[in-house]
Amino acid sequence: MNTFRLIKQAGSARSAEFTTPHGIIKTPVFMNVATQAAIKGAVSTEDLKALECQIALSNTYHLHVRPGDELIRELGGLHRFMRWDRPILTDSGGFQIFSLAKLRKIKEEGVSFNSHVDGRLLFMGPEESMKIQSNLGSDIAMAFDECVKIPSPRKYVKESADRTYRWLVRSKKAWMQNVQEEGSVNPGQMLFGINQGAIFHDIRREHMKKIAELDLPGYAIGGLAVGETHQEMYDTIEAVEECMPKDKPRYLMGVGTPGNILEGVARGIDFFDCVMPARNGRHGHLFTKEGILNIKNEKYTREDLPIDPTCNCPVCKKYSRAYLRHLFKAQEMLAMRMAVSHNLFFYNTLMSEIRENIDHGTFEAYRINNSQKLDKRI
Amino acid sequence: MNTFRLIKQAGSARSAEFTTPHGIIKTPVFMNVATQAAIKGAVSTEDLKALECQIALSNTYHLHVRPGDELIRELGGLHRFMRWDRPILTDSGGFQIFSLAKLRKIKEEGVSFNSHVDGRLLFMGPEESMKIQSNLGSDIAMAFDECVKIPSPRKYVKESADRTYRWLVRSKKAWMQNVQEEGSVNPGQMLFGINQGAIFHDIRREHMKKIAELDLPGYAIGGLAVGETHQEMYDTIEAVEECMPKDKPRYLMGVGTPGNILEGVARGIDFFDCVMPARNGRHGHLFTKEGILNIKNEKYTREDLPIDPTCNCPVCKKYSRAYLRHLFKAQEMLAMRMAVSHNLFFYNTLMSEIRENIDHGTFEAYRINNSQKLDKRI
Repeated sequence: MNTFRLIKQAGSARSAEFTTPHGIIKTPVFMNVATQAAIKGAVSTEDLKALECQIALSNTYHLHVRPGDELIRELGGLHRFMRWDRPILTDSGGFQIFSLAKLRKIKEEGVSFNSHVDGRLLFMGPEESMKIQSNLGSDIAMAFDECVKIPSPRKYVKESADRTYRWLVRSKKAWMQNVQEEGSVNPGQMLFGINQGAIFHDIRREHMKKIAELDLPGYAIGGLAVGETHQEMYDTIEAVEECMPKDKPRYLMGVGTPGNILEGVARGIDFFDCVMPARNGRHGHLFTKEGILNIKNEKYTREDLPIDPTCNCPVCKKYSRAYLRHLFKAQEMLAMRMAVSHNLFFYNTLMSEIRENIDHGTFEAYRINNSQKLDKRI
Repeated sequence: MNTFRLIKQAGSARSAEFTTPHGIIKTPVFMNVATQAAIKGAVSTEDLKALECQIALSNTYHLHVRPGDELIRELGGLHRFMRWDRPILTDSGGFQIFSLAKLRKIKEEGVSFNSHVDGRLLFMGPEESMKIQSNLGSDIAMAFDECVKIPSPRKYVKESADRTYRWLVRSKKAWMQNVQEEGSVNPGQMLFGINQGAIFHDIRREHMKKIAELDLPGYAIGGLAVGETHQEMYDTIEAVEECMPKDKPRYLMGVGTPGNILEGVARGIDFFDCVMPARNGRHGHLFTKEGILNIKNEKYTREDLPIDPTCNCPVCKKYSRAYLRHLFKAQEMLAMRMAVSHNLFFYNTLMSEIRENIDHGTFEAYRINNSQKLDKRI
C-alpha cells in the first residue's frame, strides 16, 4: 500500500494525503508540539481538535526520561496515555541529546549523556531510540541521527553524516523488528529517515541519495534552522529536494515562521513542526493575517476587538484584545492558554489555506502575497 | 419582588432560589473565585459552565488596581469583559486591603493604603468601594467593611464593628444612588451587608441586629476563617444566625473545606466562597468522595483510573491518575487546569448534592456521613 497519495502539484509544492494507523493526514501539514505528552499552555487534546490539529509531535528523549517509555507502554501507549486518537510523530531524541543533555560522548554505538532532569547517565543509540519509540507507539518514528551545529567544520559534518547513515541502517533494522514483535503497541508504525549535512550541498545530496535507497515511508531534512540564514536554509532545501523521492512525504524539522513554511512548501516540503506558535504565544506574540502583534502593547488596553477579526478560533470568536491583554498583565495562566490556542489555530488553518491554494492553482500568488507579510511585526 | 425564595428547610439548613439580574441561583451555592476576572489554572468561562458553576466571585480591590474599574465599565462591565453571562458577586475590597496592601491607615472616612502592584497610594471608603462595584456591574455588591484579625482586643473589635456599621449605612446610600444613576452598568445590582465582631458573640449579635434593620437583599458573616478554630467558627455562626433575617440569603465569606461547608449549611448558610479548590488543585491536592488525595504521590504512577471513579467531571471522564501525575511532575500547565477543573466540579456538585438532600429530607444523614470523611487526607 502506498501511504502517500499526491493530489495536486504547483511547481515543487504539492498537496497530498498520508495514511497512518490513526487516520489520514492532509499535507502540507503543521504538527502541533506536545513535547512531554501535553501541549504547552494548558491546551488539552479536546482543544487540539477544535484548533484543527491533525497530528501531534512528542519527544522521545523527554518521555524516556520522564515518565518513562516502559510506563507509557504498560498504560497502552502514548495515544492512550494522553488520550489523543489522531496521529502522533515522535522525534528520535537525537536533537534533545545534542541541545539539552550535558556531557555527551558520541561513539559509533550511540551517545552517552547525562539526563537534564536528574543528571543520571544514559545511553542512546539507534536501537534504544527505536525501542523507546516502539514503546510509545507513535505512528511515525524518526531515525536516530546527530544534529550538527551550524557552522561546523566540513570534515566533521561529513564524518557525522556518514555515521548518521550507518545509524539509519541500524534504525531501519530495529524498527522492522519492533513492528513485527508480538504485542507491539503500534504494528503500523512507520519510520522516516533524516537527511543531514549542515549547509554543504554536496554532502546533503550524497547523503540524501544514499538514504533514499533504503526505501523508507518518508524522509526528513534535519539540522536546519539551527543558526544558518533563511537564504542558506532555502538553498539547502532546494539542493536536497531534487534528490528526495517524489512519492514519499518530506518533513522539514523544526521550521518555522509562517513565511518559512510558505517558502518550504514552495520547495516541496509536506511536514513541518515548530515550538514557535506555543513559545511566542506564551510571550504574548500573536499571529494574524496582517502580521505578528504583541498583545501586551499599551495600544490594546481598550480594544474590544478580537486578536484577529478575520479569525475563527475559539478565542477570537469570544474574547477581546483588552481582556487578553489584562490576563497577560495580571499573569493569569488563562492568558497562555488563549494565546497558544490562537497561534496553533493560526498555523493549522494557514496549512489548510496553503492546501486549498495548491489545489486551486493559486499557491504562487498566495505565497507572494503572504510570505513577507505574515512574519512582519505590527 | 422577593428575590430569595425558600424551598425546603432541614433544621437550620435550607434550600432556596435567589434571583439575580443574570439568572436564578440555587442555594446553598459555592461561588467560584475569579479574583482578577479569571479563574486560576487557565480555566475558561466555557469550562466553568461544564463545571456546573452557578456564580463567579471577583475582587474589587484587584480589579480596581488592574486593569481598573473605569476601563471595565467602558468595555461594558465585568460580565462582558470576561464573557461570563451568569451571576457575579464582587467583594468590597476590604479583605484585600487588610490582608494584601501595605502601610494602611484607617480613618472614619475609609482606608489609605499602598497598592500591592506598584506601591501607588490609594484611598478606599464605602463610597469608593460601591462606585468601583457599580462600575464592574456585579449582580451582588458587598458592603465595605473592616475584617479584623483573630485574636484582636475586645475593645478594638467593638470599635471596628461600630465603624463597619457606619460604613454600611454609607455603603447602602451610595449603592442606592449608583443603581439609579443614568447609564448604570447593572441597575439590578444588589447589596449584601457584612456582619463583623470576631468571635465575641455579643458584639456579633448586636451588630447583626443593627444591620438587619437596614433591610438589605442579603447578609454575610465576614471575618471568620482568619485564625480561629473550627469550633469557634461554628459557635460564632450559630450565635449570629439566630439574629439573621430568615427570608434573606446568608453568605459565610471565605469558607472553606467540604466539611466546613456541610457544617455551615447545617447552621443556616446559603452562600460560600473559598480559594481552596483552586489553590489545593494547583498543588495536586484533589477532592474525592473518599477524601483528599495528593496526585503527586508515588502510588499513582501506574494508575489508569480517573482521579475519582465516581466523578463525572470532564477530567475524570477522560484522563488517568497516571497521566495527571505525569503532568504535575513534568510541570505542565495542563496539570493545573485539570486539577482546578476537577476540584471546582467537586465543590459545585457537592452543593447540588447538599440541595438534593435538603429537598429529600436526608440532609442530616448526609452531613453525618460526609462531614469528616471529605476533609480527610487519603
